[in-house]
Amino acid sequence: MAESRIVAFTTDFGLNDPFVGIMHGVVLNIHPETTIVDVCHAVASYNVFDGAWTIAQSYRFFPPRTVHVIVVDPGVGSERRPIIVETADYLFVAPDNGVLSLVEAREEKFVVRHVTAERYFRHPISQTFHGRDVFAPVAGWLSKGVAPAEFGPQVSDYVRLPLRKVEHVGAHSLRGEVLRVDKFGNLITNIGELDAPALFASQPPPVSILVSGETITRICRSYSEGGDGEIFAIIGSSGYLELAARQASAAERLGAGVGTPVGVLQEPT
Amino acid sequence: MAESRIVAFTTDFGLNDPFVGIMHGVVLNIHPETTIVDVCHAVASYNVFDGAWTIAQSYRFFPPRTVHVIVVDPGVGSERRPIIVETADYLFVAPDNGVLSLVEAREEKFVVRHVTAERYFRHPISQTFHGRDVFAPVAGWLSKGVAPAEFGPQVSDYVRLPLRKVEHVGAHSLRGEVLRVDKFGNLITNIGELDAPALFASQPPPVSILVSGETITRICRSYSEGGDGEIFAIIGSSGYLELAARQASAAERLGAGVGTPVGVLQEPT
Amino acid sequence: MAESRIVAFTTDFGLNDPFVGIMHGVVLNIHPETTIVDVCHAVASYNVFDGAWTIAQSYRFFPPRTVHVIVVDPGVGSERRPIIVETADYLFVAPDNGVLSLVEAREEKFVVRHVTAERYFRHPISQTFHGRDVFAPVAGWLSKGVAPAEFGPQVSDYVRLPLRKVEHVGAHSLRGEVLRVDKFGNLITNIGELDAPALFASQPPPVSILVSGETITRICRSYSEGGDGEIFAIIGSSGYLELAARQASAAERLGAGVGTPVGVLQEPT
Repeated sequence: MAESRIVAFTTDFGLNDPFVGIMHGVVLNIHPETTIVDVCHAVASYNVFDGAWTIAQSYRFFPPRTVHVIVVDPGVGSERRPIIVETADYLFVAPDNGVLSLVEAREEKFVVRHVTAERYFRHPISQTFHGRDVFAPVAGWLSKGVAPAEFGPQVSDYVRLPLRKVEHVGAHSLRGEVLRVDKFGNLITNIGELDAPALFASQPPPVSILVSGETITRICRSYSEGGDGEIFAIIGSSGYLELAARQASAAERLGAGVGTPVGVLQEPT
Repeated sequence: MAESRIVAFTTDFGLNDPFVGIMHGVVLNIHPETTIVDVCHAVASYNVFDGAWTIAQSYRFFPPRTVHVIVVDPGVGSERRPIIVETADYLFVAPDNGVLSLVEAREEKFVVRHVTAERYFRHPISQTFHGRDVFAPVAGWLSKGVAPAEFGPQVSDYVRLPLRKVEHVGAHSLRGEVLRVDKFGNLITNIGELDAPALFASQPPPVSILVSGETITRICRSYSEGGDGEIFAIIGSSGYLELAARQASAAERLGAGVGTPVGVLQEPT
Repeated sequence: MAESRIVAFTTDFGLNDPFVGIMHGVVLNIHPETTIVDVCHAVASYNVFDGAWTIAQSYRFFPPRTVHVIVVDPGVGSERRPIIVETADYLFVAPDNGVLSLVEAREEKFVVRHVTAERYFRHPISQTFHGRDVFAPVAGWLSKGVAPAEFGPQVSDYVRLPLRKVEHVGAHSLRGEVLRVDKFGNLITNIGELDAPALFASQPPPVSILVSGETITRICRSYSEGGDGEIFAIIGSSGYLELAARQASAAERLGAGVGTPVGVLQEPT
């Protein structure tokens, strides 16, 4: 199997400790020619869903054959399995806790293997830092060209995360929620094009969006179109409906955050 | 045109979201041999001047032919133009909002092109994340060796930021301000060697520096020269007058921050 | 001397300023083929001991011949010397302030040189940013293959940090302290296997751990073994005793932090 030049990390480790740097070292120790990229280390602590969302938004912008390592791992040291997943274009290394479920939702090919070949781990294996002793070394060997089949058997009983679906309430309204608040205070919802195609049209029909007791009726095409102090809707770069304010934090203005319900009421055409 | 091995990013995106990692992926997808460097992602949100200051302090420490990408872009999705700038040694990709004005002030050659060749963009182009769909791909292609002229026509009506000049008040005094507070609480002013050559001499003359109601008269040569609890002046590594405290935050002690006025009174010689 | 492909940085600079990016640029300017890794930039400001701990936990996971640069440098601009240290597998560049003392404690070979060859520095040398003008350039030239002996003479009077030893109080009890709080709120102590071998056995004997007025008696094998709201002990990935809580911050629950005393009372066998 060909080498993969790139190993990309997504974790909830933050940058306050040497955890991330150590994992880079472990990969380079196995395969010094690798290019290492940090996708994001600010996944909410222990939050598998936030990790799933982060990698699903990011992985497809990387070159084919990138090895994505995802370490959001509240079950570290327990019996939860380490897995390798192959999709048409990418390899993933992660704990088997559902953190790849939103990738699976986007891919036709999704082959999961239980990593059992401990010869590819770092020994002794600590019970608290499998990022260093299990996931990074496996990624290093994968990037060096070891075939996924060498690491362990294919499995079909891997963990699937229950996805928070948008709820359709009657023919013209739906109920979603805020999935993430970005650095600028934009509220990213779970309402996508398949949920409400009309909102994503170039000329969206009249709509009322209800959030935190406010009703928003305007869908802007860019942040800079927004008025002073106005909260408006916009189709975000991740392909989901966002609530935003021009050069200000919609999250702060609305007092909204992750989990805040978002209603959408389309007027019948 | 020769390849540029290095693409360096300066943004106001922070590291809380996968924005930066995604841009790295986009560049590597176009040119996997690139070395990517993060100059700084902590530019103050939407603050074009802070971005201009950050890149002006940093760009010249990189190898010749580095492609610097600057994304501080409150006008994303509006009509503001993406530009490529060529100086004697570097290439810059940025929104046309003045974020390169402090680089221009340092360079003789400063050739600006309006990037119009949409074939070098990622499609579909989102209205909210041109870092991913416009600036990173253009940087990737530039680093791969596509000549700047391929991206669009030269323009001369690019945006210039009004620079905050130091004000000379009489022959012996001047009024500047704090431009930035660094991680250690040092207050970096806009007062440079051209404004007050005497302060930068190896034996500076007696001087009074007025800030936040305090008068500072000592210019130290190193942080460790400062006394316990003392606020002193020092010539910082960026070439500007700084106010500092030994192993403590001058910003906190003075209650000063970005925009705080700083007066300098030189005694007549 | 052979080239070193990797230069790894550990500093107290944080990521709020372009300091780290500038140092990367300086290294690449000297040796564009280098792979640069950030070990950690969140060492507590001016805290030489925290820097010593961070590099000691991290350096050995990197490939042999990695050049580790450590910049925790409260004495920048003073007479403190820049040094290069050679161990069996690694090179280190740092200020001579004891920041490598915990590396020395782990290594048999520890050859220290005073860097006097100013031709390898960036000029003019600022008095406030030797990371840029001294340490990064020296690392760049080392990684390019310049032999350590070219930089200056061997010295034996280098600074050694007084190490905070665990105190043995009678035959069955000892007193240590918290060294670091990680991102998840785990309290990492200075109590290692040599201090209390019994605690590190696969079947540890009954023990009482006293911290912040609480008595902890359980040593778990993984974070997920902990009960809801329980504070327990665990052998951390750094090889030291940690106090932890399952998916929660032990630091917050105990009101403990760096320097908090930790007593261990082993029952006589």
